[in-house]
Amino acid sequence: MHIITLTSDWIDNDYYVASLKGKLLSNCPDARIVDINHRIKPFNTAEAAFVVRNSYPSFPPDSIHIIAVNSEPEPGGQLLGARKDNHYFLCADNGMLGLLGGDKPEQVVRLNTVREQEPASFLTMSVFAEAACALARDIPLAKLGGETSTYSSQTPLRPTIEDHSITGSVIHIDSYENAITNISRELFERIGNGRPFEIYVQSKHYKINRINRNYNETVPGELLAIFNTVDLLEIALRNGNAARLLKLNTSSTIRVEFYEHSSRSEGSG
Amino acid sequence: MHIITLTSDWIDNDYYVASLKGKLLSNCPDARIVDINHRIKPFNTAEAAFVVRNSYPSFPPDSIHIIAVNSEPEPGGQLLGARKDNHYFLCADNGMLGLLGGDKPEQVVRLNTVREQEPASFLTMSVFAEAACALARDIPLAKLGGETSTYSSQTPLRPTIEDHSITGSVIHIDSYENAITNISRELFERIGNGRPFEIYVQSKHYKINRINRNYNETVPGELLAIFNTVDLLEIALRNGNAARLLKLNTSSTIRVEFYEHSSRSEGSG
Amino acid sequence: MHIITLTSDWIDNDYYVASLKGKLLSNCPDARIVDINHRIKPFNTAEAAFVVRNSYPSFPPDSIHIIAVNSEPEPGGQLLGARKDNHYFLCADNGMLGLLGGDKPEQVVRLNTVREQEPASFLTMSVFAEAACALARDIPLAKLGGETSTYSSQTPLRPTIEDHSITGSVIHIDSYENAITNISRELFERIGNGRPFEIYVQSKHYKINRINRNYNETVPGELLAIFNTVDLLEIALRNGNAARLLKLNTSSTIRVEFYEHSSRSEGSG
Repeated sequence: MHIITLTSDWIDNDYYVASLKGKLLSNCPDARIVDINHRIKPFNTAEAAFVVRNSYPSFPPDSIHIIAVNSEPEPGGQLLGARKDNHYFLCADNGMLGLLGGDKPEQVVRLNTVREQEPASFLTMSVFAEAACALARDIPLAKLGGETSTYSSQTPLRPTIEDHSITGSVIHIDSYENAITNISRELFERIGNGRPFEIYVQSKHYKINRINRNYNETVPGELLAIFNTVDLLEIALRNGNAARLLKLNTSSTIRVEFYEHSSRSEGSG
Repeated sequence: MHIITLTSDWIDNDYYVASLKGKLLSNCPDARIVDINHRIKPFNTAEAAFVVRNSYPSFPPDSIHIIAVNSEPEPGGQLLGARKDNHYFLCADNGMLGLLGGDKPEQVVRLNTVREQEPASFLTMSVFAEAACALARDIPLAKLGGETSTYSSQTPLRPTIEDHSITGSVIHIDSYENAITNISRELFERIGNGRPFEIYVQSKHYKINRINRNYNETVPGELLAIFNTVDLLEIALRNGNAARLLKLNTSSTIRVEFYEHSSRSEGSG
Repeated sequence: MHIITLTSDWIDNDYYVASLKGKLLSNCPDARIVDINHRIKPFNTAEAAFVVRNSYPSFPPDSIHIIAVNSEPEPGGQLLGARKDNHYFLCADNGMLGLLGGDKPEQVVRLNTVREQEPASFLTMSVFAEAACALARDIPLAKLGGETSTYSSQTPLRPTIEDHSITGSVIHIDSYENAITNISRELFERIGNGRPFEIYVQSKHYKINRINRNYNETVPGELLAIFNTVDLLEIALRNGNAARLLKLNTSSTIRVEFYEHSSRSEGSG
């Protein structure tokens, strides 16, 4: 029994999400359908990749993830099916596969998209539904289109590193207004090597010099830094609203400077 | 195994949608419940009909569609169950059945609504849940209430046609700000008969003289016309926002004028 | 086959809800997952309790209700599992159990929360997923942690009563802008004892002197009072918007005065 997850920028106040579910239920009623998120900002490939990247590992192996964001096919048929990390991904050839991070896909095919009767707009929906149901019926990926290795592959924006510093960005503001950065715990510990540090948020006015283990260790109203559920450095305010207060948005700069033990500056705030 | 779909104006930040699902799961746990849309604008029968009309055909035959919009029963019990196009519809007697378009229903009953113990408000929820579960258990529609042919039946707003023109309206703005009109491909091709045309949007300032096959054929920022997934003429902007830019809303006028071959005006824009 | 319901303040435009569903589907694929509401205002325990209190009784016995609102564990592990009214509740030790109303829980345990490998933030998600799946596999609640009777238990805000009056509050504004109060039908009838009354909304300017059986009995635009689906007094406007028009919000005062038969004032409005 396969799970098919759905991520789109269709929001869900139109009929598109329901139509896709109807097609899936009509063609592979044994599959279990789970919405990940239909409120991706229109055409925002990076946001969709972030959400899927951080949720797909929770699902069982062989789950099938439809990512219908920025996926209207260019002339020539550019919808992809991929096998990666024991999961299947159906998305457009728009850089999404690379933005999912992790290992390179083991196998990528260009999905067959020629449809005689179908209106050309939203072809995506029919192609994805058909491919998802084929995979849910254990039809091999290789049968769904021609294999390819020349697909568009953006790499996620990575922090810049130097001996004593990491310069990263805010990549996502969550529903609590926490600012999630692209600085991983692994990178932080590797460059930091146990040294004391200051985290500068947005400018040298906001500084944090320790990492909390959880949100509740600080006084309400105080800024804190924490590694989140996917081990990314996150800037938060006890009880929310960090991003709004600090006027943070995606692309805001977060800089970590590491010090030798004798030169650490005092305080945080 | 039946599918029960849910459409309402309850949004889903209260407890109403969850309560309905709880009742359904308590009474017919084998049915599969699928949300179509709970963000219909309050009491907006036309919007609900549009969303259901364009999604129900994707679902398998014998699916049961609850449409709880503008459905508080007037004194006397006015909730309907209908069989149409091999699907079941449960809605209020408020014109909804006619607005679903397509063929006239084969059978319509007035659902039994007398409840001794139930509070009178939101009687709808209990009546729909009970009727849906009965249908999901294959109890014939005729057993759920008295048959009727005198129910309220609005017809959807139709375009006006003349030999050389079609005057229609925007009937829905979708989540990309595309403006969906009530001009069908069938009507367009029948009146147009292969002739060149101009589509006037809102006024003679915005003109389009060709129909795209997909969204990507135009330059970003340019206005385009396309027949959408349900073959309705849609006015869009590459990458969204047509409605906002052009200040379109439901009821904005869209006029198509057809020309003899020698009199076609140049350009689009 | 157990149902697991989910209520949170995670909204659903991040990856948290999807991750929780993935964990549940990975660990207890036979359970049926139903969203109650993920749009609880951040940290708003009272709102979450209101929504769950009014929807859980619709679900079958032995349903498992995860309430992930204001639930980041304080140091020391403070997530609770409770058995109450033949249902299971998983929530934080933040007063939520008391706010669910009804009977005291039969059994409450402190869920085991020590995790070696897990990042400390959002520990909640893993603990709740594991506990929910254990219950769905019929593992007794007593095995999920140490029993306790000393948990935080707020009582819902209750109306003040006198011989001839009830003073209550608005506790929830629903999606139609109806104002739901904490005055139950039982209390109203017990104190009122059949006497005529005036309901004063917000000030003595808005008065209502009868209770409708349903919303449609009044003229459109007129204020009305009704007992809702859970028998709480609700102030509404035919076709919505009472709260906005009257500037009502949670904590607005609603006062009911009962009169001897000869002293009833005239009119409503």
